[in-house]
Amino acid sequence: MRTRTAGKRWMALLCWAAIFTAPAARAADPLPAWNDGAAKRAITGFVARVTTPGTPDFVPLAERIATFDNDGCLWAEQPMYFQAFFIFDRIRALAPQHPEWKTQEPFASVLRGDMKGALAAGEHGLLEMAMATHAGTTTEEFDRIVTDWITTAKHPKTGKLYTEMVYQPMLELLTYLRANGFKTFIVSGGGIEFMRPWAERVYGIPPEQIVGSSIRTKFELRDGKPVLVRLPELNFIDDKEGKPVGIQQHIGRRPIAAFGNSDGDLQMLQWTTAGAGPRFALYVHHDDAAREWAYDRDSHIGKLDKGLDEAKANGWTVVSMRNDWKTIFPPSAR
Amino acid sequence: MRTRTAGKRWMALLCWAAIFTAPAARAADPLPAWNDGAAKRAITGFVARVTTPGTPDFVPLAERIATFDNDGCLWAEQPMYFQAFFIFDRIRALAPQHPEWKTQEPFASVLRGDMKGALAAGEHGLLEMAMATHAGTTTEEFDRIVTDWITTAKHPKTGKLYTEMVYQPMLELLTYLRANGFKTFIVSGGGIEFMRPWAERVYGIPPEQIVGSSIRTKFELRDGKPVLVRLPELNFIDDKEGKPVGIQQHIGRRPIAAFGNSDGDLQMLQWTTAGAGPRFALYVHHDDAAREWAYDRDSHIGKLDKGLDEAKANGWTVVSMRNDWKTIFPPSAR
Repeated sequence: MRTRTAGKRWMALLCWAAIFTAPAARAADPLPAWNDGAAKRAITGFVARVTTPGTPDFVPLAERIATFDNDGCLWAEQPMYFQAFFIFDRIRALAPQHPEWKTQEPFASVLRGDMKGALAAGEHGLLEMAMATHAGTTTEEFDRIVTDWITTAKHPKTGKLYTEMVYQPMLELLTYLRANGFKTFIVSGGGIEFMRPWAERVYGIPPEQIVGSSIRTKFELRDGKPVLVRLPELNFIDDKEGKPVGIQQHIGRRPIAAFGNSDGDLQMLQWTTAGAGPRFALYVHHDDAAREWAYDRDSHIGKLDKGLDEAKANGWTVVSMRNDWKTIFPPSAR
Repeated sequence: MRTRTAGKRWMALLCWAAIFTAPAARAADPLPAWNDGAAKRAITGFVARVTTPGTPDFVPLAERIATFDNDGCLWAEQPMYFQAFFIFDRIRALAPQHPEWKTQEPFASVLRGDMKGALAAGEHGLLEMAMATHAGTTTEEFDRIVTDWITTAKHPKTGKLYTEMVYQPMLELLTYLRANGFKTFIVSGGGIEFMRPWAERVYGIPPEQIVGSSIRTKFELRDGKPVLVRLPELNFIDDKEGKPVGIQQHIGRRPIAAFGNSDGDLQMLQWTTAGAGPRFALYVHHDDAAREWAYDRDSHIGKLDKGLDEAKANGWTVVSMRNDWKTIFPPSAR
């Protein structure tokens, strides 16, 4: 028995040795696209604090919830939300079935190629166009439509696929957090079913960890086959005050870290940081006109005004894209 | 170098030896509370099919989604839904603040101890009582109220805590599926915030994997502190046709296995089994009057009528609690 026990002890020791000496990569920088600076140190410092067992700030695995805005936080959002390009392409594709759109605004402007006119009616007009183009299919049909579009449509300025305009530093951050036991969620004002078809491939975030705006669906049996039909009725807008509501509805517990880039994320950051124990809030600040876009307090898209003041007042981390990020977009096609 | 490589090989070999010889429990029956029979074989056969790499029926980890009804499937539901006991206890606790309830039905019946009268208004009355007792607090306050109740209230017939009336065979099934890479979800007609405070401790299912009925909430700043206030307005009923809708909304992909016990689960089972590839649907049939309750086609709670016919027609697994389960409730207090 003694020999056997001793043998087992040796095995255990050798296993530990193998585990701790083998991966030389463990020491490598997990955030290579981030310049060394206050923002990067704030991130790695927070992760070290909440993952060190036996310390007062240690957070159990199950509670390591991190929520990310999408537009302007994980991918770009200029000159307009990428989902708006999708909506406009859908209007063009569906136009033959809707002859009335030729004279009906804002559809008529889209069909004339007048983007300024199309956006003149503001959020209300965009919502109307979203309803008209996102409803009327089953959930499976809509999934295919989004998948076809996202794998072929190109951004008018960069000529890249939209999924090539995700932020490399944020991809690394997602991976880094997950490697440290975090469950990563998207909490976006964008359409939940517009993000789900590609977010797992691009961000590593599965459909069940995506929270977004939605229209209603209805269960039906069609020739005995069950389908979910998408209705032109609003279900939920996951923006501003809606973000903490969406977080509670889907996740059911408060995140310990939240990431955004606009005033639309402010309530999510407030809700996250108001919890007990260690908390982390970060704003991506678009200040890089040369490599991306520069906009904040006066922008019609992704306005960051009140949030910037609150970030300063509360000591939240503000990332300067120009100074904190070595690269913006991933080097190779995704 | 040669010695070092040989050393590493030895280490690897010893590690494998340690892993494969240490846990003798690995070979043990993962479902000891299930009698050997068709139901148990159907479960283990399905799990073997979808988890064997290189076979046509292999299902990648990310798609191993299993959804479970709660009332009557994971825990008992007689003589009425356990949440109804909670509602009645809340009415008694809140009565001093609601003098009008003394004469207002169905509240007056509850306060007189007349349960039959209290339930006379059916689902509409129950919903009215749920609204009156589940709203008006913040989400955090409601969490504490549920936690206090669930850890102290006892079932009128068995004298057990309600969480002691979960089904031991289903607890084993949840653990077995998770050990085989499944992500387990609850999809229940019960209140989502009534289940979340205790489902992780009792079932190992975290809040973000619970889908249920809900009322609306509203984000507010109270003295600068963000809260979510629960409103007396219906948000979603997660029952019957609502179950596939709730699954799509929360999970965003179709389960490959679904478990229920009533006609309220029928659409979930239809939706699950209509997908491509291997699918599994199971009904728990309450046919054990001696150890639990016996009810199906004519029951006012957990009615199983159309579902029983569809199960036979489609070859779904029907579990006889009397014949398939060695034990019903866990042996020790939870």
